Amino acid sequence: MAKKVVYIAGLGLIGASLALAIKRGQPEYEILGYNRGEQSRNIALEKGMVDRATDDFAAFAPLADIIILAVPIEQTLTFLKELAGLDLKENVIISDAGSTKAEIVAAADKYLADKAVRFVGGHPMAGSHKSGAIAADVNLFENAYYIFTPSSLTKSGTIEEMKDLLSGLHARFVEIEASEHDRVTSQVSHFPHILASSLMEQAGSYTDEHPMTQHFAAGGFRDMTRIAESEPGMWTSILLTNRQTILERIEDFKDRLDKVATWLEQEKSDAIWEFFDHGRQVRKSMEIHKRAGVDSFYDIFINVPDEEDAILGILELLRGTSIVNIRINEENREDINGILQITFKNREDLEKSAKIIRENTKYQVFLD
Amino acid sequence: MAKKVVYIAGLGLIGASLALAIKRGQPEYEILGYNRGEQSRNIALEKGMVDRATDDFAAFAPLADIIILAVPIEQTLTFLKELAGLDLKENVIISDAGSTKAEIVAAADKYLADKAVRFVGGHPMAGSHKSGAIAADVNLFENAYYIFTPSSLTKSGTIEEMKDLLSGLHARFVEIEASEHDRVTSQVSHFPHILASSLMEQAGSYTDEHPMTQHFAAGGFRDMTRIAESEPGMWTSILLTNRQTILERIEDFKDRLDKVATWLEQEKSDAIWEFFDHGRQVRKSMEIHKRAGVDSFYDIFINVPDEEDAILGILELLRGTSIVNIRINEENREDINGILQITFKNREDLEKSAKIIRENTKYQVFLD
Repeated sequence: MAKKVVYIAGLGLIGASLALAIKRGQPEYEILGYNRGEQSRNIALEKGMVDRATDDFAAFAPLADIIILAVPIEQTLTFLKELAGLDLKENVIISDAGSTKAEIVAAADKYLADKAVRFVGGHPMAGSHKSGAIAADVNLFENAYYIFTPSSLTKSGTIEEMKDLLSGLHARFVEIEASEHDRVTSQVSHFPHILASSLMEQAGSYTDEHPMTQHFAAGGFRDMTRIAESEPGMWTSILLTNRQTILERIEDFKDRLDKVATWLEQEKSDAIWEFFDHGRQVRKSMEIHKRAGVDSFYDIFINVPDEEDAILGILELLRGTSIVNIRINEENREDINGILQITFKNREDLEKSAKIIRENTKYQVFLD
Repeated sequence: MAKKVVYIAGLGLIGASLALAIKRGQPEYEILGYNRGEQSRNIALEKGMVDRATDDFAAFAPLADIIILAVPIEQTLTFLKELAGLDLKENVIISDAGSTKAEIVAAADKYLADKAVRFVGGHPMAGSHKSGAIAADVNLFENAYYIFTPSSLTKSGTIEEMKDLLSGLHARFVEIEASEHDRVTSQVSHFPHILASSLMEQAGSYTDEHPMTQHFAAGGFRDMTRIAESEPGMWTSILLTNRQTILERIEDFKDRLDKVATWLEQEKSDAIWEFFDHGRQVRKSMEIHKRAGVDSFYDIFINVPDEEDAILGILELLRGTSIVNIRINEENREDINGILQITFKNREDLEKSAKIIRENTKYQVFLD
């Protein structure tokens, strides 16, 4: 494969992490970077994430074999328009990293249709609670979905070349139609953000009249509102570029709340029981219990005392096993008590670990 | 303090754990147990959780100085009525462990007003995802809230005697009016359960038409729907005994969804931004970031590679520090990337640990 020139526009967390991971997979490629702000641009240069950097988007675009727009959605739309007026390399691949896809794909089709360029929408489904090139991480996309949404400009070979470029991400590539991407993410991500922020706002306002609200809020409530701390600007853009399907989710959800309200008013205990049971069954049957698309989740639950180094002791016993995740579930919740939950990559490790813990400690061990 | 006779009705997870923890604090007390089902009754007897056990509730009630009803809410209401007809010890304390309090306190006032008994509502805010005496845990209530809701029968000294009885739980005792308890828990627990189950039901139904829904559901969605796996029977009872305030929460929430929908229809980006920003500010300011009522949460975030024993290596470095919680945040979410989050008891341990990790590893370390 010949040496290529890759231009990453936007050296925030996503762009800078892409640069690092592309370099890992394709060390001979030249990576150019654009960033408006000086700080992340300088960090990316100093740390060798990019070979050259500019604050003038148009300057490097003609040099690139592949251009990835890793800027906010509005900026992505503007840059697509700007690219139409630039003298680009023939057959250059243009892609992006936006969280919604239909508007971006439509903009590419609209502005770039007459040019000898290729385009495919991209959505690396990863992120961090930190931002900027300073937080860049070569492993950010490991095992994450990297979604491609084709357009009329996704000519044969485009996605294969992108996968080749991005091999160092160790991501899971998926191809899906842009509007279907937006529908699915509205259900599992965009609308849940509205729910979380609304619940947070509601509880905050309730706290003014009922001060114990904030003291009794724990466990499940904490889980349910975690994403309410996301960055407002990004989520405003996401909502505004996926309005129709999110509005449908809101209306559908209100109907579901009405249904529960009616059962409550009429004291329909059977219907309420069915409602809770159905939710439980659906969740148990969903992929949510699996490491999306790859491995199943195998969970063990251990009652550990609130003592120093209790977790360390358990991990020492389990040295060398494939632990996918670990957490102590919160005390002060109705459903799950302060219990150490460890997720393994496979059933064999799960069963071996359960045996080791039972033989070497007095802790209660549950398999799910 | 003289030896007392304690009667625990219901030897499920809560009742049996209460028995263990009471015995830890008051080893000289005699503990009697009632359970309808044979299995948990036999386990409680065999494991010495109770000194004697019966399947006839009325049989042991006259022997008790303190009676705790740790049965489902409906059964609690029935037993309160039944107790009115029994020949109880003078000044016996009757309490319960139900998740809603107003109906139970009202039932006690109604049925027991003419008797020489005392009553106080109780709600130990803890639980587990397992049930039955087999899952009993002497530490179940450690650091959990144990809420007392007084009634007209909560004569002077009642709550003090209960606290004395329950000293072995190591719980945090709080006194609050029954209807206020029900309002607060409707906001932070009951209504969020409806939200979680409704979201789960909605996503399940969406999956039928849009199969990728279940693959892209991860991170935030997983957090938001975790409590949808709770036991349907218990939550049906909770809803039915706290209908009015939950209905108010539903109506209020629908108004909030309508507000967001209107902004979306009118493309009011400023209002949407303010909405997300407000949710974020409220969450940051709430006690939710603290270990409820006691210590603040001090969190450290460490980028760890997906390698065997990486967590073990970190915990070995931190041996002897007070770790309150530990978790790996999921990959494949927009906001928080696969990152090890460790919560410490105090700022000193937090800062010391950050320094140790920075000095001994190449991992990125963030303090929040």
